[in-house]
Amino acid sequence: MRVIGIDCGTERTGYGIVDSDGRTHRLVAAGTLKTSPHDPLPLRLLEIGEGLRKVLEQHRPTAAAIEEVFHAVNTKSALKLAHVRGAAMVVLAGQGLPVGEYSPLTIKKSVVGHGRAEKQQVQFMMRSLLGPAAPVEQPDACDALAVAICHATHAWKPVA
Amino acid sequence: MRVIGIDCGTERTGYGIVDSDGRTHRLVAAGTLKTSPHDPLPLRLLEIGEGLRKVLEQHRPTAAAIEEVFHAVNTKSALKLAHVRGAAMVVLAGQGLPVGEYSPLTIKKSVVGHGRAEKQQVQFMMRSLLGPAAPVEQPDACDALAVAICHATHAWKPVA
Repeated sequence: MRVIGIDCGTERTGYGIVDSDGRTHRLVAAGTLKTSPHDPLPLRLLEIGEGLRKVLEQHRPTAAAIEEVFHAVNTKSALKLAHVRGAAMVVLAGQGLPVGEYSPLTIKKSVVGHGRAEKQQVQFMMRSLLGPAAPVEQPDACDALAVAICHATHAWKPVA
Repeated sequence: MRVIGIDCGTERTGYGIVDSDGRTHRLVAAGTLKTSPHDPLPLRLLEIGEGLRKVLEQHRPTAAAIEEVFHAVNTKSALKLAHVRGAAMVVLAGQGLPVGEYSPLTIKKSVVGHGRAEKQQVQFMMRSLLGPAAPVEQPDACDALAVAICHATHAWKPVA
């Protein structure tokens, strides 16, 4: 299966695509969609949505996954993030892709082995699983690859 | 100017379109986009997005406005609502429409005269401003018309 993982953010949204049989994973593509903080939110959402649409058209994944909103920290940031997720979801669903959803804890657990792993450990594991082409210098793309691998190793779980 | 107002909700998203010179307003169209609670969120967002796109193509508004998220009450509902807003905003921006954003208080104030007005008063004022065709039996469409009229009577304000 070819899975796209997405790590949403208003400034930087990471994406990562892997081909996987659930055990071994091959890096297909990864990158970061950046938006300008000077643009109004609807324009930034459009940039993310259009960027994502191009990635989907180019690489044709058959499954998608996205990180859950972690709202315990800051309601304002969580609300902004939820807008980006909404924009990403409408684009993914528009391409007929079901969208899996995982908590940060589940994602880290499935790639590092425990849920409290540091970002650096996730990056280290991406390089170890996907080889030297893994974009460890792009933390959002790396996180997105972790979401994709998490989804590839789990059964598909519908979003509530 | 032709303004579309949108009242977002996961189950029912209202829309209302008016032609306005800032003082008098004429009803163009109004309705409710419904989604099934049994569908996963990305599919519901797609239904709302596609429904909205059709409305925009049919009626070609030149401006758009949306209610701010009111997150004081319930974080979980506010987060869900933010997803719908994100999906709606990406569709509006995709059609080249700038999106104004107003608080519930500002909207009520601009159509009823004070910010603590009841829903029934908004509906009464919509009938009074737009005539007997105002869809008072559809509260979400009525709220959306209030958003449109609020925008028509204010200077355009960019979304942060």
